[in-house]
Amino acid sequence: MGDKRRILVVNGPNLNLLGSREPNIYGNTGLEELNQQLVLIAEQKNLELSFFQSNHEGEIIDRLHSAIGKYDALIINPGAFTHYSYAIADALLAIKLPIVEVHISNIYKREAFRHHSVIANVATGQISGLGLYGYFAAVNYLHDYFSH
Amino acid sequence: MGDKRRILVVNGPNLNLLGSREPNIYGNTGLEELNQQLVLIAEQKNLELSFFQSNHEGEIIDRLHSAIGKYDALIINPGAFTHYSYAIADALLAIKLPIVEVHISNIYKREAFRHHSVIANVATGQISGLGLYGYFAAVNYLHDYFSH
Amino acid sequence: MGDKRRILVVNGPNLNLLGSREPNIYGNTGLEELNQQLVLIAEQKNLELSFFQSNHEGEIIDRLHSAIGKYDALIINPGAFTHYSYAIADALLAIKLPIVEVHISNIYKREAFRHHSVIANVATGQISGLGLYGYFAAVNYLHDYFSH
Amino acid sequence: MGDKRRILVVNGPNLNLLGSREPNIYGNTGLEELNQQLVLIAEQKNLELSFFQSNHEGEIIDRLHSAIGKYDALIINPGAFTHYSYAIADALLAIKLPIVEVHISNIYKREAFRHHSVIANVATGQISGLGLYGYFAAVNYLHDYFSH
Amino acid sequence: MGDKRRILVVNGPNLNLLGSREPNIYGNTGLEELNQQLVLIAEQKNLELSFFQSNHEGEIIDRLHSAIGKYDALIINPGAFTHYSYAIADALLAIKLPIVEVHISNIYKREAFRHHSVIANVATGQISGLGLYGYFAAVNYLHDYFSH
Amino acid sequence: MGDKRRILVVNGPNLNLLGSREPNIYGNTGLEELNQQLVLIAEQKNLELSFFQSNHEGEIIDRLHSAIGKYDALIINPGAFTHYSYAIADALLAIKLPIVEVHISNIYKREAFRHHSVIANVATGQISGLGLYGYFAAVNYLHDYFSH
Amino acid sequence: MGDKRRILVVNGPNLNLLGSREPNIYGNTGLEELNQQLVLIAEQKNLELSFFQSNHEGEIIDRLHSAIGKYDALIINPGAFTHYSYAIADALLAIKLPIVEVHISNIYKREAFRHHSVIANVATGQISGLGLYGYFAAVNYLHDYFSH
Amino acid sequence: MGDKRRILVVNGPNLNLLGSREPNIYGNTGLEELNQQLVLIAEQKNLELSFFQSNHEGEIIDRLHSAIGKYDALIINPGAFTHYSYAIADALLAIKLPIVEVHISNIYKREAFRHHSVIANVATGQISGLGLYGYFAAVNYLHDYFSH
Amino acid sequence: MGDKRRILVVNGPNLNLLGSREPNIYGNTGLEELNQQLVLIAEQKNLELSFFQSNHEGEIIDRLHSAIGKYDALIINPGAFTHYSYAIADALLAIKLPIVEVHISNIYKREAFRHHSVIANVATGQISGLGLYGYFAAVNYLHDYFSH
Amino acid sequence: MGDKRRILVVNGPNLNLLGSREPNIYGNTGLEELNQQLVLIAEQKNLELSFFQSNHEGEIIDRLHSAIGKYDALIINPGAFTHYSYAIADALLAIKLPIVEVHISNIYKREAFRHHSVIANVATGQISGLGLYGYFAAVNYLHDYFSH
Amino acid sequence: MGDKRRILVVNGPNLNLLGSREPNIYGNTGLEELNQQLVLIAEQKNLELSFFQSNHEGEIIDRLHSAIGKYDALIINPGAFTHYSYAIADALLAIKLPIVEVHISNIYKREAFRHHSVIANVATGQISGLGLYGYFAAVNYLHDYFSH
Amino acid sequence: MGDKRRILVVNGPNLNLLGSREPNIYGNTGLEELNQQLVLIAEQKNLELSFFQSNHEGEIIDRLHSAIGKYDALIINPGAFTHYSYAIADALLAIKLPIVEVHISNIYKREAFRHHSVIANVATGQISGLGLYGYFAAVNYLHDYFSH
Repeated sequence: MGDKRRILVVNGPNLNLLGSREPNIYGNTGLEELNQQLVLIAEQKNLELSFFQSNHEGEIIDRLHSAIGKYDALIINPGAFTHYSYAIADALLAIKLPIVEVHISNIYKREAFRHHSVIANVATGQISGLGLYGYFAAVNYLHDYFSH
Repeated sequence: MGDKRRILVVNGPNLNLLGSREPNIYGNTGLEELNQQLVLIAEQKNLELSFFQSNHEGEIIDRLHSAIGKYDALIINPGAFTHYSYAIADALLAIKLPIVEVHISNIYKREAFRHHSVIANVATGQISGLGLYGYFAAVNYLHDYFSH
Repeated sequence: MGDKRRILVVNGPNLNLLGSREPNIYGNTGLEELNQQLVLIAEQKNLELSFFQSNHEGEIIDRLHSAIGKYDALIINPGAFTHYSYAIADALLAIKLPIVEVHISNIYKREAFRHHSVIANVATGQISGLGLYGYFAAVNYLHDYFSH
Repeated sequence: MGDKRRILVVNGPNLNLLGSREPNIYGNTGLEELNQQLVLIAEQKNLELSFFQSNHEGEIIDRLHSAIGKYDALIINPGAFTHYSYAIADALLAIKLPIVEVHISNIYKREAFRHHSVIANVATGQISGLGLYGYFAAVNYLHDYFSH
Repeated sequence: MGDKRRILVVNGPNLNLLGSREPNIYGNTGLEELNQQLVLIAEQKNLELSFFQSNHEGEIIDRLHSAIGKYDALIINPGAFTHYSYAIADALLAIKLPIVEVHISNIYKREAFRHHSVIANVATGQISGLGLYGYFAAVNYLHDYFSH
Repeated sequence: MGDKRRILVVNGPNLNLLGSREPNIYGNTGLEELNQQLVLIAEQKNLELSFFQSNHEGEIIDRLHSAIGKYDALIINPGAFTHYSYAIADALLAIKLPIVEVHISNIYKREAFRHHSVIANVATGQISGLGLYGYFAAVNYLHDYFSH
Repeated sequence: MGDKRRILVVNGPNLNLLGSREPNIYGNTGLEELNQQLVLIAEQKNLELSFFQSNHEGEIIDRLHSAIGKYDALIINPGAFTHYSYAIADALLAIKLPIVEVHISNIYKREAFRHHSVIANVATGQISGLGLYGYFAAVNYLHDYFSH
Repeated sequence: MGDKRRILVVNGPNLNLLGSREPNIYGNTGLEELNQQLVLIAEQKNLELSFFQSNHEGEIIDRLHSAIGKYDALIINPGAFTHYSYAIADALLAIKLPIVEVHISNIYKREAFRHHSVIANVATGQISGLGLYGYFAAVNYLHDYFSH
Repeated sequence: MGDKRRILVVNGPNLNLLGSREPNIYGNTGLEELNQQLVLIAEQKNLELSFFQSNHEGEIIDRLHSAIGKYDALIINPGAFTHYSYAIADALLAIKLPIVEVHISNIYKREAFRHHSVIANVATGQISGLGLYGYFAAVNYLHDYFSH
Repeated sequence: MGDKRRILVVNGPNLNLLGSREPNIYGNTGLEELNQQLVLIAEQKNLELSFFQSNHEGEIIDRLHSAIGKYDALIINPGAFTHYSYAIADALLAIKLPIVEVHISNIYKREAFRHHSVIANVATGQISGLGLYGYFAAVNYLHDYFSH
Repeated sequence: MGDKRRILVVNGPNLNLLGSREPNIYGNTGLEELNQQLVLIAEQKNLELSFFQSNHEGEIIDRLHSAIGKYDALIINPGAFTHYSYAIADALLAIKLPIVEVHISNIYKREAFRHHSVIANVATGQISGLGLYGYFAAVNYLHDYFSH
Repeated sequence: MGDKRRILVVNGPNLNLLGSREPNIYGNTGLEELNQQLVLIAEQKNLELSFFQSNHEGEIIDRLHSAIGKYDALIINPGAFTHYSYAIADALLAIKLPIVEVHISNIYKREAFRHHSVIANVATGQISGLGLYGYFAAVNYLHDYFSH
């Protein structure tokens, strides 16, 4: 068995409220609980997950910067920053890692302003509308990615 | 006499310059002085005001989150964030509190980019063009709101 | 103690149904009761309020004319006339008084035809979505206005 | 035999001239005569009709308000108010009764400004272009409606 | 000498303020004074003038209806109703009398919304931009009209 | 009694047919008869009228030029030239006199090409649709105008 | 044999130059020669032709006016006036005679500004592009017309 | 010395007012004075000038026709006819002479309707914006033209 | 006799071919010959002409610059540079002299790209279509200009 | 030697990665090293530099506010905020200092969204594409600016 | 001390007029004086400057070609050529040297045709709006560039 | 064997750099080498080639002018002048010779501004995208052309 691959999971603004905010859209599971479930899956796949959530565009950029050289991949749900933060897009571009963009709801089925992601063209791929499972799919994808 | 109701008053970017920046539009009273006057009013109404001004979108979001369960209502003048911060709008949506959006000047009478508020959809009401009195009106409104 | 300032409070069509019509939007308080409460507030502030409600555009115009020289300020909720009565706008233009436009519900959150006010150009400021309190806020604003 | 259902029949501006105004469009029967014929029909169906005609937008709104709790249904021909009176539309919305909108001529076949009814979306249904028979059809419909 | 011809002179909303409202546009003569001057002219011409001013669309319509068979002609300055009252236009259409539409200022030289008259189609003629003299011209026209 | 004011009355193409051409629109009085009637009126008012009719654009321009310094006011019915003669408009612009534009029929009720007047910009006021009386009204207006 | 029918043949601006002006378009026959040929044809058909040519819009209108009651029909080639003389169109409308509009060349095949005739809708019919024969065709048509 | 060349100088509508009409645009020299100056120049060049000014489109066309065979060249300032007289353009086309179109002011720098000349296509050349000197330039040009 | 006025005559690309290139458009006189003729004329008028022709945009700009302070006026035929040389337009703008723009052929009668002059905005006047005489007219105009 | 002028150098999001992020675009020098070099230059010019970098829009606004009264000029590279931060633009507007906007790469040569700067309207000048030297150029420019 | 680096400074059309042309935009310093100041600066930096100004597009291209292998860098202010000389852009593309595009005024704040630079795509960087200092900044930039 | 036909081969701006500039587009062969190869081919066909290259629009025009009467045909690659030099197009038009326009690359497959040739409509034919072979094809075409 080789070294554990390290993955940073970044959640953007308001995702700390997961489980309590608009449960009809986002479900009842809290972010902490989600993260614990993701850790269980990751351990089975010899992956080491780190988690970061912030409502600050600037802190997310700071954290992305600190990921350079310390992580092997990135999972990010940028929340509402998806739609206007060219600064986060620039930070992602600066990281030479595989990046999976996750949206719990299908952003293409919601309000018009949510249809455009300024992040999408700097990510490796995007998962949208699979609910919390999107995060699991992202972890699995990266495990698969590292197996090749 | 019942418990004091707690109200968080949030001011967005550049409102810390109140009294010195473009006084022909915003007047000469500083933010601190305004807040002290608001406290005097609030005490008479058994309301407890907390003030928060930030030029940081993220700090505003954090502060909004922390208001859940700790405050009974919210007054917000989002400054220039009014026009592009979907992240603040999402945060406001997540708070199940009465929210009063205040603009010192009448935003519908200024530059075109200021005519659209991405916040208006998630606020309870809006006061525009009443000068600094708009904040007093918001406090009084909430006092009244709690009295029912 | 100086002279009492006199304020005319004008309500447009269907506002006589206040308390019974669409209470989910407009609440349960009737117009008469609202007015009595406004009087109590006004007396404390040495203001004298007069009330006028009509479903008739013409009666509103008549009343506005009679306010010239008899009142010091005006509070008006033009109801549906907000959206098409150029005749009321002309009448308000003829009155050289501070005017506060009040909407119980937030007109910017409702049907598209309610987003445009032909009155806004001739009013000092606008309060929208604060429910009945919008009237109290308007009275208080004018008291504050007269204090300077 | 059960209680008589009460129906208020409201006619808007210029319909008092029925029988004399533009008989090529509206026929020769006067409003009074029409009403008597409607009463005959109604009695056979155990319905009680009340009639109201006004050229005043405000009086119509007043009358609609007074219908609350006193009538079981409403028939209204709003005349030219059909095309711009959001205030009458609001009043109709406040009445929780079945409402039939009647136009003697086919408003969709006349001048362009007559093609849009601001009343239509608050009425139960609309009858247009059946001549005076439209009123009979409305009475019959409501009889049928009450029979279920 | 034959019977006196009777003419109804109708003035719409805000024209009761004539002489005090925007005197730079409308001059300093009040409506009462204008009417007295018109009477003097009319008496010389064996005409009987009745005057009606109302800020109420409905009252204007009622008055127009009552003119049928009682008056021989009509002079109307519809004020701001010129631009949206299809109900007044319908009433005028129902009256088989000569109708002179008068505008004190030249409506074709003012704001865009004042360029279109929904009344013009149903009037005999229109006088625009001759100041108060427009009313005298209308009286004289009708005197002339009756002389043939 | 002061000096007589001199007014030039100009009629454009086809107005010489007055009385015989389309009498349903223009009536049965001939132009000569009209002019004699206008003279009678004018003499009573100490006004001196001169008349000119031409089907020739050029003759009208010539006559307008000769009016400079010889007349105190101008009445003009430009007939069909209303709609295309920039040369007449240039000539009117060169005359510094009060100008009343008269149309026997209401040009705003006829064919689309008659709705636009290239003359209106250079006239003081406009009388449309009062039949031949429009000329009398114009004379009287100018008498009134000179009286102030 | 009945009375001779009288026909007025009117030619507009520049047609006096026929035969010398742009012969490749209009041919070599002069107007005088054309008229003589038309007379020959007309005599055989018991028609009496009168001819009028003018380069003056006003003279053509004058001549058209004088044709009333003296002629039984009209043939007109309005030349370039075809495209802008509403004054001639009005004059033709005043004449209650059959009118044939003739154009030597096909105006619909030439410059864009020649495609629109303001005369066409007041004429009985139009002949375009048959060369000089168009005049003969017009005479023949009127002969045929009078035979019924 | 050979025969004198004859030049016809044609001025269109309102140019007889030269020197008094809008002197800020056209200067203070009258047409007569201008013509006398042109004659002095022409005599020195053995040219014979004839002058024609008319406000009549038809007279201008007649005069243009009479120039055929009698004049050697043409100078024309068509005034406002520049913009709509296709009949003058046709007449100019029929004259096989050199034609100089003169505009005192630069027509390409004035109101939009003055930017298009329907004459330009049929003139030899155009002089615009040189003031009254434009006429002298035209005379001199033709003198030069005849010298070759 | 006063000082000689100095005029610089500038010809743009291909004008050196004058006399041989497209003689049907530009004639047979060569540029040298033209210049000699211009000198003869100029001497009689106490004007001193300098000539410059170049097919080089840069040489033209150089020459224009050297004219500052050395010449009293400028005549320029910019050839094809008329349509795209903003650099020549900038140079002309830098010279505070009267400027006559000359075109041998009438640019408004040729290909569409020749209808727009980027030079016209910075010239005093324009002569178009008078052939070589356009230059003489420009010289004479400037002589006349200096005489006032 | 006069007082030292104080300049604040502000760098926006991701500029802390300077030297490691996209070195092909931004080079290998880190921000700290850049700043030290700038200090060396500044000391020679008697300028005192302060530095601030943040990935947080709010911290940048805070720092800009604190510059009021403490600095004599401002150099700012707003990074991706250039394209959407109206809040930073409002803050810059509130500072009455010379402002140089610096971009390391040439923003006009990159993606379309980078071509528009919401900052440019409030800056004195802009340096784009000179790499890190752009900062030195800005310092030198301000030194030069203070020397006059 | 190493070899001197050679820099070619190219100024385009009309920049030789620097100091006299539109001083409100470009200042009072002449090009020669500017160059001497640049030399002083360059000598201190062991740079050898050559200057070339031309109003000739071709000379600029030649000079650019001759710079290959002889110069180490290029500074260019292309003047009005900025907006249309694709030939200069092609020449700049052919030179494998660092190129600084300088504009004295901010071209993005002037007439619309000056907002687009066809040169910007082929330059290393651009300095706009720093006045004459832009050239010094460019020299300094290149000195810095060579130092690495 | 007849006389040798003479062909002038003109190359426009930047083509002197052939072989060194963008070899991926234009290849490695220099212009001199190309010309020598063309001479070899030409001799076999009894053609005499002359070569001219310039970066100056003006020199190319000069050379084209000097070709008149000295050459039998022209081959031209106008480089970037292809897209805006109406002056070269005018010069080519002045030469009555067969002209072959050559572009090494396919101008229709490159940047949008290269798709339009202002030269194409004055050339006999165009060869685009055949690489250097385009010149050989042009020579061969002209040999073939002279053989007929």
